[in-house]
Amino acid sequence: MTTRPAIVLLSGGLDSATTLAIARADGFAPIALSFRYGQRHACELDAARRVARAAGVGEHRFVDIDLRALGGSALTSDLAVPKDRDLAAGEIPITYVPARNTIFLAFALALAEVRSAADIFIGVSAVDFSGYPDCRPEYLAAFERLAVLATKVGVEGRPLRIHAPLLHLCKPEIIRRGLALGVDYGLTRSCYDPDPAGRACGHCDSCRLRRGAFATLGLPDPAPYQ
Amino acid sequence: MTTRPAIVLLSGGLDSATTLAIARADGFAPIALSFRYGQRHACELDAARRVARAAGVGEHRFVDIDLRALGGSALTSDLAVPKDRDLAAGEIPITYVPARNTIFLAFALALAEVRSAADIFIGVSAVDFSGYPDCRPEYLAAFERLAVLATKVGVEGRPLRIHAPLLHLCKPEIIRRGLALGVDYGLTRSCYDPDPAGRACGHCDSCRLRRGAFATLGLPDPAPYQ
Repeated sequence: MTTRPAIVLLSGGLDSATTLAIARADGFAPIALSFRYGQRHACELDAARRVARAAGVGEHRFVDIDLRALGGSALTSDLAVPKDRDLAAGEIPITYVPARNTIFLAFALALAEVRSAADIFIGVSAVDFSGYPDCRPEYLAAFERLAVLATKVGVEGRPLRIHAPLLHLCKPEIIRRGLALGVDYGLTRSCYDPDPAGRACGHCDSCRLRRGAFATLGLPDPAPYQ
Repeated sequence: MTTRPAIVLLSGGLDSATTLAIARADGFAPIALSFRYGQRHACELDAARRVARAAGVGEHRFVDIDLRALGGSALTSDLAVPKDRDLAAGEIPITYVPARNTIFLAFALALAEVRSAADIFIGVSAVDFSGYPDCRPEYLAAFERLAVLATKVGVEGRPLRIHAPLLHLCKPEIIRRGLALGVDYGLTRSCYDPDPAGRACGHCDSCRLRRGAFATLGLPDPAPYQ
């Protein structure tokens, strides 16, 4: 068991909780990184805290970023979150936050460099990617190339890797993997539009993918719904 | 004269003021983007405001980001700014802010997408790049490839360009270009370690490059020094 540090992007949702468990299982000492970015589903952050604590993460950083100042997404503005839309249509929904993963990975890269970590974990999936361009494998490969060129670590010839262990997993596979690693999905939150008590709406893209996956597995979803 | 919008990263320094002037001269309608990132030389931001106003910029956005939470640079922590160091040695100095340009460009990309701008201007120079890896042409090319993959605009097949018009200019050439475009360098600030009145130290890397350039041109530097 090594103790190589790795930066793990942790939103508090199902995917990032699973990614954190995988990073640990792969022998890394995770440094969790979460963002307060004006999201209306701030209960995510409480979930991130719970998940990190349950996973025994030694260091959990929160960075404030101001995506609301840029606007443009239903997740960071007053636009309505779409419910029960056609997920098969393949179009980019208004819950897409422009360049969000690029911003998140840029901060992860900064933290990796400060902490001499050569590994970054991100819980994106190209299967259930909900039409977001910055969840595709070619995007992640491009970021890894950028990371090497952007940093002292890279200039010195050391590798810098972006790990996306869920990239080719569908949601039921992700859950199965996480359960095998002991993830408590009752601690996670996925909804784009929860009520003030933090209960999921059940009808946004994120809820539907999650509920469908638990249903596929014949398991109850332990998260609270309205 | 077109009115294509372009995002222009504006720090308030000599380079970004020149870049803004070039973007205007190239026919773009600049949207200026500045960051409050816990820099100790906050007089930069006042300079950014003055420069944007003097250039007639219609929209100037400020985004708060929390680089201090990440640490690791003399520009965002209590480490001492090095003075009169050997600039020819080619090493990366501690004024390097990890992944800073990646973070700045990520936000510029988000704003470009929100505002349907296909052009981003950044005032980096590979000549006087002070040893920072994220000021090199190969880095910018990698970011441009990433940008196309990261965004709705790119997915839809539209181009997205990172312009770095100073990339192959040395500091005296940058100043000559800016003066020809009417830039008032008395409005700009470059020092990494100014006094409380905003006067430059004259001895940090940034001051020395700037003063040397004005001296090369046989011109007085209109910025105030201690």
